[in-house]
Amino acid sequence: MVTIALDAMGGDRGVETAVRAAASVSLQKNGPAVLLVGDRARIEAVLQRSRYDAAQLSIHHAPQVIGMDESPREAIEGKPEASLLVGARLVAEGAADALVSAGNTGAAVLACARHFRKLPGVPRTALAAVFPTEQRRGEKDDPFSLVLDVGATQHTDADALVGFAHMGAAYAARISKNPKPRVALLSNGAEPYKGPAEVVEAHRRLQADPCLHFVGNVEGVDLPKGVADVIVTEGYTGNVLLKTLEGISETALNVARYAYRSRLAWRIGLWMMRGGVMQLKQLTDWRQYGGAPILGFDHLFIKAHGRSNERAIANAIKVAAKAAGSGLCREIEAQLAGKTEAA
Amino acid sequence: MVTIALDAMGGDRGVETAVRAAASVSLQKNGPAVLLVGDRARIEAVLQRSRYDAAQLSIHHAPQVIGMDESPREAIEGKPEASLLVGARLVAEGAADALVSAGNTGAAVLACARHFRKLPGVPRTALAAVFPTEQRRGEKDDPFSLVLDVGATQHTDADALVGFAHMGAAYAARISKNPKPRVALLSNGAEPYKGPAEVVEAHRRLQADPCLHFVGNVEGVDLPKGVADVIVTEGYTGNVLLKTLEGISETALNVARYAYRSRLAWRIGLWMMRGGVMQLKQLTDWRQYGGAPILGFDHLFIKAHGRSNERAIANAIKVAAKAAGSGLCREIEAQLAGKTEAA
Repeated sequence: MVTIALDAMGGDRGVETAVRAAASVSLQKNGPAVLLVGDRARIEAVLQRSRYDAAQLSIHHAPQVIGMDESPREAIEGKPEASLLVGARLVAEGAADALVSAGNTGAAVLACARHFRKLPGVPRTALAAVFPTEQRRGEKDDPFSLVLDVGATQHTDADALVGFAHMGAAYAARISKNPKPRVALLSNGAEPYKGPAEVVEAHRRLQADPCLHFVGNVEGVDLPKGVADVIVTEGYTGNVLLKTLEGISETALNVARYAYRSRLAWRIGLWMMRGGVMQLKQLTDWRQYGGAPILGFDHLFIKAHGRSNERAIANAIKVAAKAAGSGLCREIEAQLAGKTEAA
Repeated sequence: MVTIALDAMGGDRGVETAVRAAASVSLQKNGPAVLLVGDRARIEAVLQRSRYDAAQLSIHHAPQVIGMDESPREAIEGKPEASLLVGARLVAEGAADALVSAGNTGAAVLACARHFRKLPGVPRTALAAVFPTEQRRGEKDDPFSLVLDVGATQHTDADALVGFAHMGAAYAARISKNPKPRVALLSNGAEPYKGPAEVVEAHRRLQADPCLHFVGNVEGVDLPKGVADVIVTEGYTGNVLLKTLEGISETALNVARYAYRSRLAWRIGLWMMRGGVMQLKQLTDWRQYGGAPILGFDHLFIKAHGRSNERAIANAIKVAAKAAGSGLCREIEAQLAGKTEAA
């Protein structure tokens, strides 16, 4: 059986939400076991008020907590017994198969780098994110694409971009049950010669790669249309992109609130459209889709959004169990063996 | 009086729209004169069907046209008598004060590089774009920020980013009548140490610059909120960002169309909200805001969106006239004198 370590202290909503998510997963048939890592007394206090299957839950005490706004580097150095670091250590030691946290993203990337081993053939590890689109994809009809990297790197070289393509494709194949995911490079034009030198070089190599279904360059304008299942980019641009989408969602909500307050006709109009608004919300609320994997290490980490509610964390645990159970890391290693070219 | 050269052949809507825009500007009191550059017979055919002030309009024949989808480099080499290139040459020779085109963006950047002179002290020229926000700014209550670069560069160094900050501030001060525009650096975190090395270095130098109102780093999530008047970034990331916003607008329209078709209640709801939808459309339809300037040359070029309608091109002509009349290029030169540090 698969066991998932959960950082019980991470996330904006704190220990209550994390422990309740684990409790709900414990009651599901064929779900993974969950190892709760954090302050034992506080975890037990929440469990006392919850329904759960004790056979599926265990606790590992960790006395320190890394806050959401702490400097990742200082936190990792100064708090060796933080739940996030202890969780990563437990996974590395084999006590669990993968780690889930809704905590500090930068600290999560560093915790993996400290306790996990980068897979042979992986030029750079990546933080991936799911991204809402109009089209649905794979056997599971998932309404999102995967974008990577969105935060483990800044600028990268062609080697790293090719590695991201393979890791993203392996993940999409397993999680969305999409046997031949379409992979695209983010650039500022569809033509192969568009973009910075490393993007042009990665295009050439991906085009010639028989193991990938490479569909070429995509532009920002194509992303919400769902023209590809995996979008490859450097971390700086990927992160800016992801946070822009978050900003757009917030702006749309502000405009809707303004419309609701301003005129009775608009209020009635919004009410009549509530089904459509909910569909739109679902399309843009990618937080529910189970979190962002850190790929390229010998163990999997799933970073749930800081604002995750109970359902989102439970989804992240299930996604982690699925990926770990399907041998994702071994598959990435196999795909990348011998891929790296000398610069 | 200010004279604006207009590439009459550029843009998705062709010569008809461009000439009608020029005709409407010619009738405005205190408007600029317009020099129409393109196929004389086709321009005259449209003018025959239009109301215009002949004292304010003239034509310069150019026999070739660069298509919207042509490779910029090949077009610039192969069509020396294209309206875009002839227009740039006329401005360089003093026959007009600035150039406006709704044509091929890449070719426009190359046409400027061929016929205009880069100002002393400008490390890299930039294509800027306006970007819709919730907040309004400046004396003119403009609902947008300026982002640069969005396409003249790919990756850049700190020198170039500092130059973009000064050029953007000079433009915003003149066009939005915003005497002290807030300038921000796009990064993947608010802290000064976040981002690639060149962004960190540019942050340090902008922070110490007494001539700018630098407000620090902004993330993508902040952009639509209007936290800054000028957003500085490299061309690759800026272009991806801009095209993502375009994609979001299109997706929102598709969702609205779907809602309209799907249910009577949603259709009525949309109808009741039409005032609000129009406000939202106005907020996101930045095409009407007069186009994107190419900054850093001794002459100004305003690139109107390819899909510009008559009103958008007329706006671009007026913006170009305002910028040229206010001595924008001299101001940029003055601001950047002595700013470039050795690497």
